[in-house]
Amino acid sequence: WTWFKTKVTDFGRCWKKLGKDDPRRVIHSLKVGVAIALVSIFYYYQPLYENFGVSAMWAVMTVVVVFEFSVGATLGKGLNRGVATLVAGALGVGAHHLAKLSGSVGEPTLLGFFVFLQAAITTFMRFFPKIKARYDYGLLIFILTFSLVSVSGFREDEILELAHRRLTTIIIGASACVIISILFFPVWAGEDLHNLIALNMEKLGNFSQGFADEYFRASEEDEASSSKDEKSFLEDYKSVLNSKNAEESLANFARWEPGHGQFRFRHPWKQYLKVGTLTRQCAYRIEALYGYLNADVKASLEVRSKIQEVCTKISTESGKALKELSIAVKNMRQSSSSDIHIENAKTAAKNLNSLLKSDPWEDNVDLLQVIPVVTVASLLIDLVNCIEELADSIYE
Amino acid sequence: WTWFKTKVTDFGRCWKKLGKDDPRRVIHSLKVGVAIALVSIFYYYQPLYENFGVSAMWAVMTVVVVFEFSVGATLGKGLNRGVATLVAGALGVGAHHLAKLSGSVGEPTLLGFFVFLQAAITTFMRFFPKIKARYDYGLLIFILTFSLVSVSGFREDEILELAHRRLTTIIIGASACVIISILFFPVWAGEDLHNLIALNMEKLGNFSQGFADEYFRASEEDEASSSKDEKSFLEDYKSVLNSKNAEESLANFARWEPGHGQFRFRHPWKQYLKVGTLTRQCAYRIEALYGYLNADVKASLEVRSKIQEVCTKISTESGKALKELSIAVKNMRQSSSSDIHIENAKTAAKNLNSLLKSDPWEDNVDLLQVIPVVTVASLLIDLVNCIEELADSIYE
Repeated sequence: WTWFKTKVTDFGRCWKKLGKDDPRRVIHSLKVGVAIALVSIFYYYQPLYENFGVSAMWAVMTVVVVFEFSVGATLGKGLNRGVATLVAGALGVGAHHLAKLSGSVGEPTLLGFFVFLQAAITTFMRFFPKIKARYDYGLLIFILTFSLVSVSGFREDEILELAHRRLTTIIIGASACVIISILFFPVWAGEDLHNLIALNMEKLGNFSQGFADEYFRASEEDEASSSKDEKSFLEDYKSVLNSKNAEESLANFARWEPGHGQFRFRHPWKQYLKVGTLTRQCAYRIEALYGYLNADVKASLEVRSKIQEVCTKISTESGKALKELSIAVKNMRQSSSSDIHIENAKTAAKNLNSLLKSDPWEDNVDLLQVIPVVTVASLLIDLVNCIEELADSIYE
Repeated sequence: WTWFKTKVTDFGRCWKKLGKDDPRRVIHSLKVGVAIALVSIFYYYQPLYENFGVSAMWAVMTVVVVFEFSVGATLGKGLNRGVATLVAGALGVGAHHLAKLSGSVGEPTLLGFFVFLQAAITTFMRFFPKIKARYDYGLLIFILTFSLVSVSGFREDEILELAHRRLTTIIIGASACVIISILFFPVWAGEDLHNLIALNMEKLGNFSQGFADEYFRASEEDEASSSKDEKSFLEDYKSVLNSKNAEESLANFARWEPGHGQFRFRHPWKQYLKVGTLTRQCAYRIEALYGYLNADVKASLEVRSKIQEVCTKISTESGKALKELSIAVKNMRQSSSSDIHIENAKTAAKNLNSLLKSDPWEDNVDLLQVIPVVTVASLLIDLVNCIEELADSIYE
């Protein structure tokens, strides 16, 4: 019983957290509820019901299936569903008439063959990566509608009527979704993508700014005293490593969206994917750096301290540059201060290079001690190059 | 017109390639066609039609929506749909009866409220990551069925009959999908996951084996002469970096699958995800190494040659180890030869360490020249550690 109780409170806490993390989720749930209840009116309200009959349930179904979290996804699904129903309905009626010509024996055979053929071909088309990304749902509905219309045509002779009613109710359902999702607290996939890209850069910037402090921390004691909270922000970047899929699906949704806020209709969403890829390149470098933070054997303090100053400079300047770039992306404005930070980081990297050239450790320590430090240094220099490339792509 | 013609031939080539890359896609398309044509029999065959009436179309719909590429996905969707329909149907009937008690004025209001409430709550539940991964489709169908049953109940008084028919036809459709997808050339998500993990390791192994050759290539000319084909296998590893989502969804599907081939019903699929994550860790190291392959300024030949032998040893041995591990995973058998290769790689890494300790370049060259080489060396050592960890997790 206690087990049950803790489970329930855990569950409750989960709900609360989920809602707090993103209040738009709560609003979305309410919106879906409203949309479905609204469309149900078709059933309650007598005159409407007489027009559409049982077909009115297609409207309810459409709302349930089409209403997605973001406007772009809803629009995309709605358009896919509408167009696919129209095309498949027309073809279905055509197939039905063609089959009729072949007499009562040939009709079911021919219809079955048509259904088989279109299902097989359309299913295969769903494997094309490009088609899958944007029209997957439409193809599904195409198979569905074609099968339903051509097959039920075998029974009912009011086939045109059926196709027409199905189309009308689907349009009503889809419009209800689109209107509600745009009018009340819209969630724009484009905006989400925009923020995700900026946030990812900021996370990398945070790491970069914090890295040097953490790496050149004076003693082991210090390390223990640094609270876990402090360290956790150093792991934030990990989510960037696997953000590819999220970015791509958001970009696909965003393409369906009309202009909104600061975005025009044909905003260059592809550019965001490019920036995202470069951000991930930076993240891979940072992943490598991260490994040296927790290395079992850090280079001795003495060795590290020689390059502490320059490395700290590089690391903080790149961090600042990343954050400035993140802000620039967020405001869609060219920022000169990011250029300055990048320049600073590059100068520091050059200084580091020449410092290393002069062999600051001379022959006091063996090379083995120096290696990890040198690796860190060279990864940092590498990171600076990455960031520069990133900046170029942003200003394109 | 020529433009159109090239487009068409391009398209045809695309189709052919898609089918050749994975012939299972063609088979899958045919299977879907057969399943839909088969279920259409419900419409053609008189006695069956009389039993189910228009509801028979639910069977067609179920097939279209439920039939997925892998057995696991199909089973998961089928079960989700069946169970959700059952539960939502029961609750819908209950809600309908409850609403009836409140008289003709209260009924539509109360029903509307119920529909709104369940839609909002269920939509919110779909945001839980764990629920989303496995039961997303079930929740969608729950909303759908509940709305349809409770709302159409307002019209038809044969509500129980309706719910019953809907459930039966859905079960028929789902069973048809599951049976066809298992009996004829089944595509097991578990097997795919298994192969994907092994393949990813093999790709990393290929890179690792080829890396040293490429890096220590004697001259620029040689580089140009190496055909592009040869180099392309060095980029194969890139797909590993972003394989997380594919692995996770395959693992989710695999859980639904019954035992097949070498896999028991409750095969530890989670272990695969763990191995996959470690493989990706290795891939990140390799991404860093890759950067040094194409670096603008490679260290001079002289500098590189000093450590060529040991590095080549490390690199080929780790490559062999990865490939052995990949074979071990593929055959689900512990392989002693991978341990040997790992040991060899570790010994070579130790040798490299002591070689570096003795400072093979003495003071003939400046540190700056040495740095990239040393970084490569240390990344290789790092990679060996990663691989060891990976091997441990595989034999767990």
